[in-house]
Formats: sequence, structure tokens, C-alpha cells
Amino acid sequence: MSKRIGLLTGGGDCPGLNPAIRGAVIQAMELGYECWGLEEGWKGLIEGNARKLALEDVEGIVGQGGTILGTSRTNPFKKEKGVEKALASMKSLNLYSLIAMGGEDTLGVAQRLYAEHQVKVVGVPKTMDNDLSATDYTFGFDTATSVAVDAAERLIDTGKSHRRVMVLEVMGREAGWVALFTGIASGADYIAIPEKPFDEAEMIEQIKTAYARKKHALVVVSEALKFSKPASNGAAVPDKDDFGHTLLKAQGTGDTLAEMIEKGTGIETRASVIGHIQRGGKPTLFDRILATRVGVKAAQMTHAGQFGRMAAMKGSEITDASLKEAAGTLKKVSADWIYMAQTLSMKREIVSR
Amino acid sequence: MSKRIGLLTGGGDCPGLNPAIRGAVIQAMELGYECWGLEEGWKGLIEGNARKLALEDVEGIVGQGGTILGTSRTNPFKKEKGVEKALASMKSLNLYSLIAMGGEDTLGVAQRLYAEHQVKVVGVPKTMDNDLSATDYTFGFDTATSVAVDAAERLIDTGKSHRRVMVLEVMGREAGWVALFTGIASGADYIAIPEKPFDEAEMIEQIKTAYARKKHALVVVSEALKFSKPASNGAAVPDKDDFGHTLLKAQGTGDTLAEMIEKGTGIETRASVIGHIQRGGKPTLFDRILATRVGVKAAQMTHAGQFGRMAAMKGSEITDASLKEAAGTLKKVSADWIYMAQTLSMKREIVSR
Amino acid sequence: MSKRIGLLTGGGDCPGLNPAIRGAVIQAMELGYECWGLEEGWKGLIEGNARKLALEDVEGIVGQGGTILGTSRTNPFKKEKGVEKALASMKSLNLYSLIAMGGEDTLGVAQRLYAEHQVKVVGVPKTMDNDLSATDYTFGFDTATSVAVDAAERLIDTGKSHRRVMVLEVMGREAGWVALFTGIASGADYIAIPEKPFDEAEMIEQIKTAYARKKHALVVVSEALKFSKPASNGAAVPDKDDFGHTLLKAQGTGDTLAEMIEKGTGIETRASVIGHIQRGGKPTLFDRILATRVGVKAAQMTHAGQFGRMAAMKGSEITDASLKEAAGTLKKVSADWIYMAQTLSMKREIVSR
Amino acid sequence: MSKRIGLLTGGGDCPGLNPAIRGAVIQAMELGYECWGLEEGWKGLIEGNARKLALEDVEGIVGQGGTILGTSRTNPFKKEKGVEKALASMKSLNLYSLIAMGGEDTLGVAQRLYAEHQVKVVGVPKTMDNDLSATDYTFGFDTATSVAVDAAERLIDTGKSHRRVMVLEVMGREAGWVALFTGIASGADYIAIPEKPFDEAEMIEQIKTAYARKKHALVVVSEALKFSKPASNGAAVPDKDDFGHTLLKAQGTGDTLAEMIEKGTGIETRASVIGHIQRGGKPTLFDRILATRVGVKAAQMTHAGQFGRMAAMKGSEITDASLKEAAGTLKKVSADWIYMAQTLSMKREIVSR
Repeated sequence: MSKRIGLLTGGGDCPGLNPAIRGAVIQAMELGYECWGLEEGWKGLIEGNARKLALEDVEGIVGQGGTILGTSRTNPFKKEKGVEKALASMKSLNLYSLIAMGGEDTLGVAQRLYAEHQVKVVGVPKTMDNDLSATDYTFGFDTATSVAVDAAERLIDTGKSHRRVMVLEVMGREAGWVALFTGIASGADYIAIPEKPFDEAEMIEQIKTAYARKKHALVVVSEALKFSKPASNGAAVPDKDDFGHTLLKAQGTGDTLAEMIEKGTGIETRASVIGHIQRGGKPTLFDRILATRVGVKAAQMTHAGQFGRMAAMKGSEITDASLKEAAGTLKKVSADWIYMAQTLSMKREIVSR
Repeated sequence: MSKRIGLLTGGGDCPGLNPAIRGAVIQAMELGYECWGLEEGWKGLIEGNARKLALEDVEGIVGQGGTILGTSRTNPFKKEKGVEKALASMKSLNLYSLIAMGGEDTLGVAQRLYAEHQVKVVGVPKTMDNDLSATDYTFGFDTATSVAVDAAERLIDTGKSHRRVMVLEVMGREAGWVALFTGIASGADYIAIPEKPFDEAEMIEQIKTAYARKKHALVVVSEALKFSKPASNGAAVPDKDDFGHTLLKAQGTGDTLAEMIEKGTGIETRASVIGHIQRGGKPTLFDRILATRVGVKAAQMTHAGQFGRMAAMKGSEITDASLKEAAGTLKKVSADWIYMAQTLSMKREIVSR
Repeated sequence: MSKRIGLLTGGGDCPGLNPAIRGAVIQAMELGYECWGLEEGWKGLIEGNARKLALEDVEGIVGQGGTILGTSRTNPFKKEKGVEKALASMKSLNLYSLIAMGGEDTLGVAQRLYAEHQVKVVGVPKTMDNDLSATDYTFGFDTATSVAVDAAERLIDTGKSHRRVMVLEVMGREAGWVALFTGIASGADYIAIPEKPFDEAEMIEQIKTAYARKKHALVVVSEALKFSKPASNGAAVPDKDDFGHTLLKAQGTGDTLAEMIEKGTGIETRASVIGHIQRGGKPTLFDRILATRVGVKAAQMTHAGQFGRMAAMKGSEITDASLKEAAGTLKKVSADWIYMAQTLSMKREIVSR
Repeated sequence: MSKRIGLLTGGGDCPGLNPAIRGAVIQAMELGYECWGLEEGWKGLIEGNARKLALEDVEGIVGQGGTILGTSRTNPFKKEKGVEKALASMKSLNLYSLIAMGGEDTLGVAQRLYAEHQVKVVGVPKTMDNDLSATDYTFGFDTATSVAVDAAERLIDTGKSHRRVMVLEVMGREAGWVALFTGIASGADYIAIPEKPFDEAEMIEQIKTAYARKKHALVVVSEALKFSKPASNGAAVPDKDDFGHTLLKAQGTGDTLAEMIEKGTGIETRASVIGHIQRGGKPTLFDRILATRVGVKAAQMTHAGQFGRMAAMKGSEITDASLKEAAGTLKKVSADWIYMAQTLSMKREIVSR
């Protein structure tokens, strides 16, 4: 009888999970395994909720957004008897090993199940934010950022027509990659990311210069941006108001910047937030290929017995990395990238030459 | 010397203005006129800000979003000496007539200039909301709604993966056309528009039924929705809170519905708003053709001396209508459409059969 | 027991069939009927190959290309005992009536089954060519032409970069609608359709003028174009060569025009053919709405007993028309449209002004 | 006075040239240089045809296909006094150095001008085929392959509806990368590339198996495929016919495979060729970022005096490589990739398990 691999997807959904599932399942079948899909991430393992995956289930999903397995943020280590139940399901479902696809949280659980309970686990990293240090790129990022670029280009049309400054707020819980790539690829006049201390005066100056030349301007800002100081003109808001309410959560970084800009430049300014729309949709070519490769790799790693590890992209190769590493330091935008972004958004110095 | 036509685009920008400009200019040239573009709507006429449009300016713009002429909401009748200055510009720029492209406001000004000051004006209707009663379709609507459908499909991917209800709030200042078409074309499980009295219990019931079957659901709601009564469970909010603040403006209809649904069904629910992103981008084929046709028609009407009128779509023909009519009654979603939308969102009765 | 409606799709597939199926099935369920899907057009009826369609089968297909029922060009009147078998299947499957979706051929069979054998049939027209005279628009056309416009815009990029003339050959078996709309919506410099006698000298002149101004040019040609005379320079080919072989089939109108242009202007010219790629893909908003409406209408017509008729679009209304009419005269591009296309492709006269 | 850099784009155009130009120009300005655009590749240098590039010329082109500089296949070493004239233009235009963007041919000229005439040249590699061994990825490839995947998905819709096998022929002059990525990303049932000896029997077997399961199948084939032997059933054609005519050029690999498949399986089969449509259009996010990075790098290399070299992508870093190397060995699809593609197209062995 074939050994059974349990497959699950956890955390926020993103484009690429389905091609990754397809890659893992078909490669596993080719190597002689059976794949069982656990429903809704770790929840499915806790509840013993699984179904056998046939070729027919996965062969047509390479271009589909989301995940056919469903996902959740359930963490067995935070659930009453969660780990106990998960281990019991491994037995009752007769699972030889697991392939866990997800971000920091999902992979963290995988790592602990491996280290503390000797569960045979292989990880597949996934985050739209592209901030896992153990891998060069994670699938989902290219698609999500492409959606943001498309939105940015729409805003440019409106900005040009109305002679306005447009602000686009994009995803990124801690790192600025989505904002950085969106800004470079749409020709933004200012990009605000958490890795670079926010300088209101610089932003105002840069927008004034761009506007003087073009009669419109585009700003891309990461939701993760922190405002280090109250703005001189009162537009910037601290994390809490006088009564202790969290203001930024209510308002968003996009709206905050738009207010600052309108006050600082006198130019009509509008903000938009992409939000959940960025999560879905058909994966791009890049994400389909990357997701397929890491999915295939995870099945090969299972066959080779490389447990406690995850598939990773290093350069143009797919290799493997320790799951421990994955839960390690965040990959932040480097100084080189910041320099390039600043050059391209055309600082005053260039223009005046 | 050729007679000069002044061309302007006013109000909110929308996809289709550029192909309409192209159509008008090339047809006018062919009929022996010169076209002068007035910058930023009526503002350009008031300030005498115009430039001659050559073939080179317009021949490549059929696929571009926005308007190369710029737009604004400036109204000469609301500006100090606005009309006086506009009339003076007609003379100083030596304009024989005007082609004014815009929505209710822009066309209203056109109508008054014609009726009260004998300015030779032809109108071209434009509104993404598709709510002008004098014409069957207005360009911009097809593109904007296509963007919304794309967003809806992305939300479905996420909804399916997370087993959530997703709510999408779309444009529509007074009529529900955008929400209606978005909902039908994305297979929404509930569509909430201002033309149909909002019934919270019905919505909750319908979503529960859809969710039971599919483990996810999609709701599309028009920003124009009005809540006729405070919801039984307190989720719905009146226009003002106890202190008289306008709450809906802050929260949006999407968020309001999402709260209602989460409370009423116990299912995790998320809302998204498209906002300004819906305004820009390349016009769809439908909008390019429609915009081209009404632009061409406006030049032909100018040549035929049909002033005080606007180009209109009736059936599959382009005809003309009185500008007075255009400023008339709003075109609202009819009972037939509401019946069809309700049938397609699959009321409980069907399913239980 | 509910009455059973048999549903089939015949002829070439096109985007919109799935939303039409969805509309018909859900409306029919709401009116108390059961729907049975016949596999691969009339073939399914002849062979008695059908399955019951549940809500689950159709509710998610509004955005899918192709047809879930399959299609074929099988014609019962051309098959040995085809009609006999079809009538037998009506009985054995216990079908009360049929809804037949397709083009001229499919609807022709429907008409004959109704007229000669009293089969209760309602038709739903479909043709990417948009050439059915009994209806203003048919679904599939907007999507297919949108694909062609996208291709045209790609070719313009290449034409500009290489200073070339690009020729795009698009679908259209007898009428030039696809080429006309593609050409207008992409700003083509010449549009060649069967409804306008082909004039090689005019084309060469027009391209030279456009090229002189822009250093590139775009020509859109319908596959249906007929060359009325051998070209003066020998580039144009008659339908048959000296040995009686059909040449155009081998070469295509696009390649033929490209050769003519390269010889007549001395400018490097390249041709592309879209072919089958134009048939598939997600239906556009316009096609989803139109297809849904005619599908819904077909179910309503069934309920109202309007057999021997088909759903049709007249203006912005969905109405019904005789199936006999549908098989009638072809809808060709009218003189008004040809005048507009010629104006927009900027004849020499305008430019020299 | 600022030093002047001459910029040119040569060879076949591709998406990404414009963002690369933008990156190079803005970075060069920031470093204190002036950029002059040479028209239509080496032709512009030979003829001394150039214009100064201002910020306004490049800041809005990041999302545009093609190249604003124009391109050609002109090679100064193959033109009468071509090199002499090029060197004279360097002087008369007062050019300090060159940045040459192009494929093997363009970079080969750059290399010789550097090695034989001491011209200060930096190269930027470009090829849609992705077959330059000196760099991991070249811009243009992601966009062109994305267009092919879109076409493949459209063909799948049609294939499913008509129960057909569909064959898609894609670009690739010598290497199979475009076909490989297109096939993996669209879930093709067979991928035929020049790097793997073509085995007709294997293909027929694999398609029969896929068709038995799904009632349709997709084949992706590279235009570069060579048929090593005449097919057993006579369908395959050698490079030349009995009279020495090149047959494949006339027919194409797609048509050839389609004939083979129809004869070998008895299933209706259709072929499509993308052709020139694959070259144009907006660059994808991946290509915009990559192109921007290598453009920026080329300006930095100019400043650092790294002549005779080109910008290259190694892993996720942009580095530099010798121009000599660039003209070296072709990067072909490796055995690992072939194994993965074969696994994913689901060989018979898997299915029978």
C-alpha cells in the first residue's frame, strides 16, 4: 500500500496555493505516494477532516486563485488538546507525513510538531508580503503586486484627468516589498515604506516638484508604515489619540498621507486602499511556475526524508532550508533597493540639473 | 477659415472620454471644422485656456483612460462673473460652438448657456452610473462595472478559501446599475441596491442558504443604498449617530452590511470598497465603440445645427435628445431587472425544491 | 412531477454559452421546471445522452468560457435516422420541450423540428460574427472582438518599434463586424471588410499617408474579405490558382494583404492571424449580461408556450423573434458604419488640410 | 559639461525595453550624465541620428510595450563603411560611451566595437527566448510567455467544448523555454521542445490517456522543434520536401503536430500560432522590475568604467558579465526541467496506478 502524505494550506490565502498543491500531489503520485487533503489548514488535522486527492482533483487547478483545501488560522498549540488531537489524526488517517503550506505561523506549527513530536513535516513557504528571509521569493507576491500595479495605473489616469495627487495604500504587514515593487513598476513619485524613516518634508517637496512638471502625482504607501513623529502641521496622527483610541487602524496610512499632502501642498489629493481584492485572482505566470516548483520539491523532499525543512528559492534554484530558519528574521527592504527607488522617483536634485 | 469648435470634458473623469474626443475631432475635421480643446472643463472656458487639437493629438488615444483635456467640477453659474467670462472667451477664442462632454452638472451648464445665452452647444452624455434617462447607455459604465466584476471574482477566491462571506461595495451615487450588473455578472448571492427597499431578514436568510450549499457567499452593494430602519440587532446604523455625526460616510455601506451579516449569520465576513480604482483604466471595447459613436455624432450635430441637444443611444442607434431632458429624471433600476437579479441570486424557495 | 426541459448548445463554441445556460436553468427552476443537459448539441439528443442539471452545476459558471454541455456540428437532418432518433429521445428522456442555443445551423434544425415535427423548441441565438439579422447583438461577439483589440494593440507596439505596417486578420465568416469593431476600437489605419468592395490603390494610399505621419500603421482585415480582381502588381490572389487549387485558404487574407502592402509601399509589413484563440476565455461583462438575459428569456418563453421562437435583443430590450426569421437574411455592415470607419481611419483628404 | 551616453535598442522588440531605457536614463542623470537616444538601433549610430532624452521623455514609459527609440537589425559590421560611420558619429555627437540593449546580435556588435575599436560600451541583454547563458533571466520572456499562457487557457475552453485536442505553437528560435513555461503554467498534456528528442509514439500515447480522462487535451510546441525522423504514418515532414523546398516554414510545427495527432489518435485536432502578437503589450511586473534593474545597473557600470561588459541577473542579484560571454553558448532547457514537465503532464504510468 502506498504511504499517505497529508497536505494542508494555512494562514491567509494567496494566488499560487493551487498550483503548489497540484505540483506536490502529482510529483508525490509519481513517486508512489497517496495524497490526502486536510480541510482548512491545521483545523483539518485537529478534526481528522481529510479526503483523498485524485489526479482529477488537481490537474485543472494550476490557474485558479485561492486553495481547494480551504484555509484557516487555527493553531493546534493554542487549542485545548489541539496537538493531542492532531497527533491522533495522524494515526487514524494513517498519515506517513505532512506537507504544510503557509506563512510564518503555519510553518512555525510545522516546526514545533517536527521538533517536539517527531512528526515528519515538509514546509512550503507562502506570503504575499515576500518577507520570509529563508527564501528569495514566495509565490503570491508577484500576483498581489501585479494587482496593485494595475490599480496604480488606473489611479494615474484619474490623477491626470483631475490634476490630482493620488495615494495608493497596499498590503505589507511588516515589510515594504509590495509597496516598493508597486511604486517602481508604476512610476510612482513617492514610495513610503516602513524600512525608511518617514520624512514628511521630503515627501511634500518631492510631490511639489513632480506636480509642477506633470500636473499630477502618484504616491504608493505600505500599510505597515509607521509615523515616527507627529507632523508639524498636525496632519499626521500618532498611534493613539488623546483618549487612547487607535487612530491609524481606523484611518489607514493612505488616508493619513493624503491629508498630509493636501495640507502641505494645497493640491487636491485622494486615497485608495486595495485591501482584500489583492488576495484573489488567477496567479501570474511567475507565481504558477514558482509555486509548482516548490510544490514538486516538497514531494521530492518527502521522498528523500528531508523532514523539518522547507522548499526554498535561492537564486534561480529551488533548494531546501531549515524550518527553524523560516521562523527567524524578517526579510526587509535593503538600502540598495531604497536608493534605487529614490533615484527613480526623481529627487529634486536631478530635476533641477 | 474653418469654424472653430471648442471641446471640453467636465465632472468626474471616466473611461471613454478619450475615444469620444477622438471621434468628435476627426469627424469635425472631416466636415471642415477646427477643434480647440478647453482645459479642465468649464474652467478652461472661463479662463480662456485652450489649444488647437491636431490629428496627432487624438489619433492614438482611443484606448486610453481619463481625458487628455483634463476635467474639473467648475460651474460658471456658481463662479463670480463666470458666465460673463465664459462668453468673453467664446469671442476671444473665436469659437463658433461648443461640444460639452459630461454628466448631469456639465450638461446642465450647457443647457443654460444655450437657453439663456444662445451659445451653440452640443452635449455628449457621460456617467459611470448609467443613470441618465435620456440615453440607454452612457460610456464609462461598462468599463467601471467590468473592473468591479474582476474585483468580485477575486473576492470569491478568497471567500472560498477562508469559508467567508465577502461584501463588495461599488459605485453608484443614486442608482443601483453598477451593483446590479456587477452582481449578476459575478454570480452574487445577494445584491443590495437603492431601488429595492432593504430587507435585512431576507438578506440574512438568503446568505445562510447560499453558505449552507457552498461554504462561502458574495454580496454586492451599491454605495447609494439607504437603510430605511435601524436593524433589529443594532448592526445597521442610521445616517447620524446620537451626537448627530454622519456615520455612514465614515463607514460605508459595505462595512455596514458586513457587520450585519456577521452578527446575523455568525459567519466570518469581510468587506471591500473599490473606490477611485473604478474610474481609471483602458476603456472596454463596448465603451470605445459607444464613446466613438457619440463623439462622431456630436460633430455631425454641430454641422447640422442641432444645438441645445445631446447625442444619445436609443436601442442600437445613436440619435439625439434635448439637453433639457438630460437634466430630467434619473434612470433607475426597473422592477424587471430586480426580479431577474433576485431569481439569479437563488432565493430559498428554488433551492428547497 | 416537474416538466423537463432539454438544453443543448450547438455549433462553434463561444464565450457566453455558460452564463446563458445558467440563466435558463435557474429561471426554469424558479418557474417549476427541471432542466436536463443534452451532451454535445443535437448529437446528445440523437443518442439520448443527457443528465439532470442541478443548481450546483450552473451557479458558478457565469464567468467561464466555452460550454459545460459540450457542442458539435451534428445535424439530425443529415444523419441516418437522425430525426427519428431525436424524437425517440424526447420520449425516452421524457422531455417536455427544448432550449437550443446556437447559430444559424443549430437554430435551423430547431425550426425544422418545430415546424415539421411539432417539437416544442425555444431558441437562443449565438454567433461571434454578430451577423444574425433577427437580433441586434449576439453574445460572444463582444468577447471575441475584445480579444482581437488586445492583439491589435500588441501589434501596434511592435509596429511602432520596428517602423512596420502590421496586418491583423480576424474572424468573420461572411460579415465584417468583428473587423469593423476591432479596427475602430484600436485606431486602425485601414479596415478591410467584405461589405465594402476592396480597393487596393485606396489602401496603399491611405497606409502611405498614415506611415508618413507616424512611422507605422495598422490594418485590420476580415477573413471573409473577397478580392474582386487580381491585383495590378500580382500580389492579390484569386480564389483558385491556375491549377484550380484554393489559394486563399492556404494563405489567408492577412498574408495576402501584407504582401500587397509591402510591394505597394516598400515598407516592411507583417501579418498575424488570431484564429481559435478568439473563441475561448472568460466572457466580458457585456456578454455575461446579454447571455444571462437571453437564457432567462428562453425559460420564460418556454413557460409562456412561445415555441418556434427565439430570444432576441432589440435595442436595450430582450424580446422574441420567429425562428424562421433567424435563418433569414444575414446582418451586414451598413453604409453608415462604413462611412464612420473610413472617417476615423483618416482619409488623405483630412490630413492634407 | 555633462558627459554624453548614447542609448540604443536593437534586434526584435520586446516588452521591457522602455522600463530599461527609463532606468538607465534616470540613473545616468542622477550620476551627472546626459543621455542621447540613437534611433532604430545601430542604424541610428551609423547615420548619426540621435536626440537628447529628457526626464519628460522617459518618466511615463515604465508600463509601455515596445521601445521609444525604435529598433532595427542593422549591423555596422555588415554595412559598407558601417563601422567607420559609427565611429564618426561617436565623435560628431560627442558621445562618451554607449549603452546597447539587445540580444545576441546587438551585443555581438557591442563586443566587437569595444574589443576592436575601444568604444566604451555597456550592454543590456534582452531576448524573449530567455536563452542567453550569461544571465539567469532576460526581460521580455515573462511577458511573452504570459501572453502564451493566456492563449493556452482560451484554447482549453474551446477544446473542452468541442472535445478536441488543441495545439499551441509558441516562440523560441532555438531553445524551448517559452514552450516549457507555457506548458507547465497552463497544465498542458504534452510539451514538445527542441531539447528533448521528439517521440511521436510517446506523444500519441500520452494524449490518448489524457483524452480518455478529460475528453480534451492541450499540446504546447516550440517553433524550434526539429523532427528527427519521418513519422511512421507520414504526417511528420522533413525540413525539405522531395524537391528541396523548406516545408516546415510553410506549415509550422503546430500544424505538423496537429496532423500527426489527428492521424494517430483519430481525435479532432486544431492548431493555433501566436506569432507577432506575443511581442507587444504592457510588460508584466516581473519584466518591469527586471528591466528597470538592468537599465539602472548599466548606468552605474558606465559610471564605474566597466566597459565591454553587460548587466546580468544572477540569482536575485543584478551583477555584470563579460560581453564576450554573452555571445557564447546558448542556455538550453536542462534535464531537471524536462523531468518536471514530463511528471506534470502526467505520464501514463502515474494514471494507471
